[in-house]
Amino acid sequence: MKNVIVTGIPRADQPAVAELASLGVATVHEAQGRSGYLGPAIRPIQDGRRMGGTAVTALCWPGDNLMLHAAVEQCRPGDVLVVTTTSPCTDGLFGELLATSLAARGVAGIVIDAGVRDVSELRSMGFPVWSSAISAQGTVKQTPGAVNVPVAIRGQLIHPGDAIIADDDGVVCVPRADVAAVLDAARQRVAKEDRSRKALADGTLGLDLYGLRDKLAVLGVEYSEYRP
Amino acid sequence: MKNVIVTGIPRADQPAVAELASLGVATVHEAQGRSGYLGPAIRPIQDGRRMGGTAVTALCWPGDNLMLHAAVEQCRPGDVLVVTTTSPCTDGLFGELLATSLAARGVAGIVIDAGVRDVSELRSMGFPVWSSAISAQGTVKQTPGAVNVPVAIRGQLIHPGDAIIADDDGVVCVPRADVAAVLDAARQRVAKEDRSRKALADGTLGLDLYGLRDKLAVLGVEYSEYRP
Amino acid sequence: MKNVIVTGIPRADQPAVAELASLGVATVHEAQGRSGYLGPAIRPIQDGRRMGGTAVTALCWPGDNLMLHAAVEQCRPGDVLVVTTTSPCTDGLFGELLATSLAARGVAGIVIDAGVRDVSELRSMGFPVWSSAISAQGTVKQTPGAVNVPVAIRGQLIHPGDAIIADDDGVVCVPRADVAAVLDAARQRVAKEDRSRKALADGTLGLDLYGLRDKLAVLGVEYSEYRP
Amino acid sequence: MKNVIVTGIPRADQPAVAELASLGVATVHEAQGRSGYLGPAIRPIQDGRRMGGTAVTALCWPGDNLMLHAAVEQCRPGDVLVVTTTSPCTDGLFGELLATSLAARGVAGIVIDAGVRDVSELRSMGFPVWSSAISAQGTVKQTPGAVNVPVAIRGQLIHPGDAIIADDDGVVCVPRADVAAVLDAARQRVAKEDRSRKALADGTLGLDLYGLRDKLAVLGVEYSEYRP
Amino acid sequence: MKNVIVTGIPRADQPAVAELASLGVATVHEAQGRSGYLGPAIRPIQDGRRMGGTAVTALCWPGDNLMLHAAVEQCRPGDVLVVTTTSPCTDGLFGELLATSLAARGVAGIVIDAGVRDVSELRSMGFPVWSSAISAQGTVKQTPGAVNVPVAIRGQLIHPGDAIIADDDGVVCVPRADVAAVLDAARQRVAKEDRSRKALADGTLGLDLYGLRDKLAVLGVEYSEYRP
Amino acid sequence: MKNVIVTGIPRADQPAVAELASLGVATVHEAQGRSGYLGPAIRPIQDGRRMGGTAVTALCWPGDNLMLHAAVEQCRPGDVLVVTTTSPCTDGLFGELLATSLAARGVAGIVIDAGVRDVSELRSMGFPVWSSAISAQGTVKQTPGAVNVPVAIRGQLIHPGDAIIADDDGVVCVPRADVAAVLDAARQRVAKEDRSRKALADGTLGLDLYGLRDKLAVLGVEYSEYRP
Repeated sequence: MKNVIVTGIPRADQPAVAELASLGVATVHEAQGRSGYLGPAIRPIQDGRRMGGTAVTALCWPGDNLMLHAAVEQCRPGDVLVVTTTSPCTDGLFGELLATSLAARGVAGIVIDAGVRDVSELRSMGFPVWSSAISAQGTVKQTPGAVNVPVAIRGQLIHPGDAIIADDDGVVCVPRADVAAVLDAARQRVAKEDRSRKALADGTLGLDLYGLRDKLAVLGVEYSEYRP
Repeated sequence: MKNVIVTGIPRADQPAVAELASLGVATVHEAQGRSGYLGPAIRPIQDGRRMGGTAVTALCWPGDNLMLHAAVEQCRPGDVLVVTTTSPCTDGLFGELLATSLAARGVAGIVIDAGVRDVSELRSMGFPVWSSAISAQGTVKQTPGAVNVPVAIRGQLIHPGDAIIADDDGVVCVPRADVAAVLDAARQRVAKEDRSRKALADGTLGLDLYGLRDKLAVLGVEYSEYRP
Repeated sequence: MKNVIVTGIPRADQPAVAELASLGVATVHEAQGRSGYLGPAIRPIQDGRRMGGTAVTALCWPGDNLMLHAAVEQCRPGDVLVVTTTSPCTDGLFGELLATSLAARGVAGIVIDAGVRDVSELRSMGFPVWSSAISAQGTVKQTPGAVNVPVAIRGQLIHPGDAIIADDDGVVCVPRADVAAVLDAARQRVAKEDRSRKALADGTLGLDLYGLRDKLAVLGVEYSEYRP
Repeated sequence: MKNVIVTGIPRADQPAVAELASLGVATVHEAQGRSGYLGPAIRPIQDGRRMGGTAVTALCWPGDNLMLHAAVEQCRPGDVLVVTTTSPCTDGLFGELLATSLAARGVAGIVIDAGVRDVSELRSMGFPVWSSAISAQGTVKQTPGAVNVPVAIRGQLIHPGDAIIADDDGVVCVPRADVAAVLDAARQRVAKEDRSRKALADGTLGLDLYGLRDKLAVLGVEYSEYRP
Repeated sequence: MKNVIVTGIPRADQPAVAELASLGVATVHEAQGRSGYLGPAIRPIQDGRRMGGTAVTALCWPGDNLMLHAAVEQCRPGDVLVVTTTSPCTDGLFGELLATSLAARGVAGIVIDAGVRDVSELRSMGFPVWSSAISAQGTVKQTPGAVNVPVAIRGQLIHPGDAIIADDDGVVCVPRADVAAVLDAARQRVAKEDRSRKALADGTLGLDLYGLRDKLAVLGVEYSEYRP
Repeated sequence: MKNVIVTGIPRADQPAVAELASLGVATVHEAQGRSGYLGPAIRPIQDGRRMGGTAVTALCWPGDNLMLHAAVEQCRPGDVLVVTTTSPCTDGLFGELLATSLAARGVAGIVIDAGVRDVSELRSMGFPVWSSAISAQGTVKQTPGAVNVPVAIRGQLIHPGDAIIADDDGVVCVPRADVAAVLDAARQRVAKEDRSRKALADGTLGLDLYGLRDKLAVLGVEYSEYRP
């Protein structure tokens, strides 16, 4: 790990990111070809929130949140702080005071593959958090790390400036260069899903709507009457 | 795995299933001799809901929800769709559109040992879901599986047509042939628990209520005064 | 394991414990030098509750809640029942009836490194519960264990009579002899955090507030301009 | 759970089971349509052993091996003891003395979704064991269970008398009625794999041998030259 | 956590500890009433080794092995270094160089609830290691901790000077004051097991040897003939 | 995920990679600043092997090994096949026949964050394998993926052509452009460790060798005599 704080990163287009957020994580994930999802282990600490922003990344040592403080300074309004550790860690690297600082800078929220604490206070503040653990375990500020380097969370690569979308389904990352194309595909998908929803609500079966009956036959799936 | 869709399955008696649901998972589990529970990994995505119905089962390939679509057609009002995969999978096999289709058919809810997505929308719709993961990860429709074959979820066997009861404690399965007897035992248990609750609320100890003092003595448990 | 029920245990000072509870788990954990936390696997079954009390401990066999019944008798108003098993267990050792009995005795709540059930009812009753699982799986009353012996939960030692504080962040244990000193340190920490919160809300950076800029330099962290 | 010991179970044909064992777990699993595998959590405690036999099943309470003793009496030469618990358990339900007893009865080995102990001694004895844990934690003999009822291990149903095959890849179950057909399919698969192995060793690519080039094209997979 | 290095700790009687080691983990665990076992997650990195010694304990910060170096100085011939971290950690806190240092001091081996590395070299050296992970991930030396304080590993309390016994079954701790009594009980158990082994090898059933037939009847276990 | 097979990738310098392999995973990981390690979940299926090569990457759908076959064609002598899936999967995507094909092409080995099977045969062949699971569960060839795109395994990014080093400690990745510098640093580290090893074997303490006594004092670690 190179101990570096990268400044002056580019950001994805904010209005486009905001619209992606309004479309939701599952739709965006599908619109970019079923990729970019950070996996089921990163969960919101609050229900019913949507968030979109551009990634400022921080890479910390386990049990140490020093680089989180360095990352705050790199954040602008509309950013999302994305944090991971060099090896698995559940400690509470983030809490109310850091949230206060981020909120003061207009940061949209945080995504962290580690623990958070002061959960009652964070919920009261309304500061949006997605994390892989809730833990009161405190941390030190002794070991260097990096800010605004590419990081990988649960198999998904994130570059600083990428779009980060989060809701009740978790978190998805859209590479900065793909935001416009993904937004276009997502809008089309929403329109298509609206039509599908109506058909399904009216009783049309997915088997017919998606043309799956032939596929079942081709794959050798047979129908047979129940025998006790 | 035989690639088959079984039609015309029998169903457990609906009024009896509905009454079991009103009594709750823990009571039903106890009433059938502490069996039938699908384990603590299958959790509700909403709080405070109770659900009862008869199982339509689907066995899917990991990362593939083709057979879920085939299963929808086999569902009738009052059924519960019970889904598992041939190997462990957290992907979001089920979401809002499939829920719309199931709701249109009067299905009571879904129990799935895999992931679900569109959680915000599912909660808004009020469609009841118990799952082992929440994941936006999408799936393909490429690989055959089975509908209405016996499936095992976390060590518990489920036949199509069995009664499925779910609440905040998780999910319990009652074999179709046992529904009447289990209902009878569950009613008796509720009556007995009402009496126990009153006694305990009045200050009677479980040690006395259940006659455990003698048992402790027989087992060699001794009392001793605290020494610092 | 010695099969013993220890009576007449000492208790930590109740008003001090109550004040610790009002300060919260993360603060108390920090105030005693970042120790005493029971880890992220022990979670509340309800949101937004705080609890403080003195530990009555129970050590059970997996799948067996006999000693929980013995422990109830040792509880006084203001106690917290702390339960663990001799090997990992997710079964529902605790439910509504035991909660009724504890509530009748004025017990503040329960912390259990095992499963609980009747979650709907427990939430309705408002009886506070922190556990490592929710499971309807019932238990037997066949195997002896111990009450009011020291127990270790996830690496944290707990003696009977220690202070137990729990909130949305989890559970922390304060040794009985340390309660006064920890309370004093916790009050000071709260005062200091109030000042920090104001500074951070006004836009002061943690880098400056905590003097971390020099540390970053000493540790060799460098700043570099973004290059695409 | 019904507390019952079923006697006089039928057994799968022993010579056929022995031949299945010689063909190995992966081959047998494929030959019955990619089903029957007990999953990656059940591992051998020794390397390089193959085992085949007919299932005698035992269902135990967690932390309790009473029914293992009852199951021993139901075992005949060539049987495999298949053990699981009513909820997840890592305790050492099985060790050297039980192995001595099983060996004296000509039992082929044990498959257990729980812990085993005396691992050094079991390896010295050469008694084959597949388990989900190694644990010295002892058990009691206090709680009833069942012998020779159908059990499900990690999603796979096993009836008493089914064929059980185990090797370094884990454990597979073949329903008693399917043994002859699966053996026939397995022999054919081995013959086919011999031809494939030769072709692949000679440098033929799987893309060509299995006709996958067209499939890649149909699925829209494109080739592109590396760009730095 | 108090940052302290405790010197001059007492040690359990070495010849008694050596004899306990020769009897093995499972026997010692039983002899002290089925307690003291560190659980199935602490595994040996080598097969077929037995080790006994007296505990020198170290409590480290995650990702930091500073206190391991401090602990080495407190070790004497016949000691076992027992290491844990303040929160869960898989990093490689221990490797070949530390093993060289411990071997030079006559230390019997190490038990660590964290990762180790240089596994090839450790095996070649023949230095005995029980750990919860193997990981090449390196650590820093930045954060204080403690040496020779009581530590809890997976629910089991260990005081400095306690006897530590390890073999293929894992690790068991015997409190220093109990060593003589446990040794006496362990010898008796071995003698009894020798008799049992002979009887079982001759075909006597555990059901008869341990008098379990009556117990099954009392518990309501019934025999029934197999029905297809 | 873009469905693409990238051809003509560059490779790291083979002699340098071979020398890195001879120095071992832990040394290489340290030499590049404690980075590049794929984590403790990727384990060898054989003991005592070292492997070095250049990465050909494959990204597969869970339960589907189609792209593994496409990747084989892109492999040259000295390559290492690096495989992961779009969501977590334990199925046996790789076995003896694919190993035969890779061996025929001179491939050094495979690293796979999924399951492998035919473990007995793979060990007999001597084909080196590091995987996150052993599973006989078979796969289909139905869903597209990618070959030679960047992949992330457990938080570590790998580009095609990077150096992959593996031994008993797991797997480390060295970016292609860094191989020469890391090799130089690794050689220096080995020389330094040789000196340290001699000093430690002669009884010098790490506290003195690394100058840690002052650090302990600065960090406030105190020595205190044992009190019972």
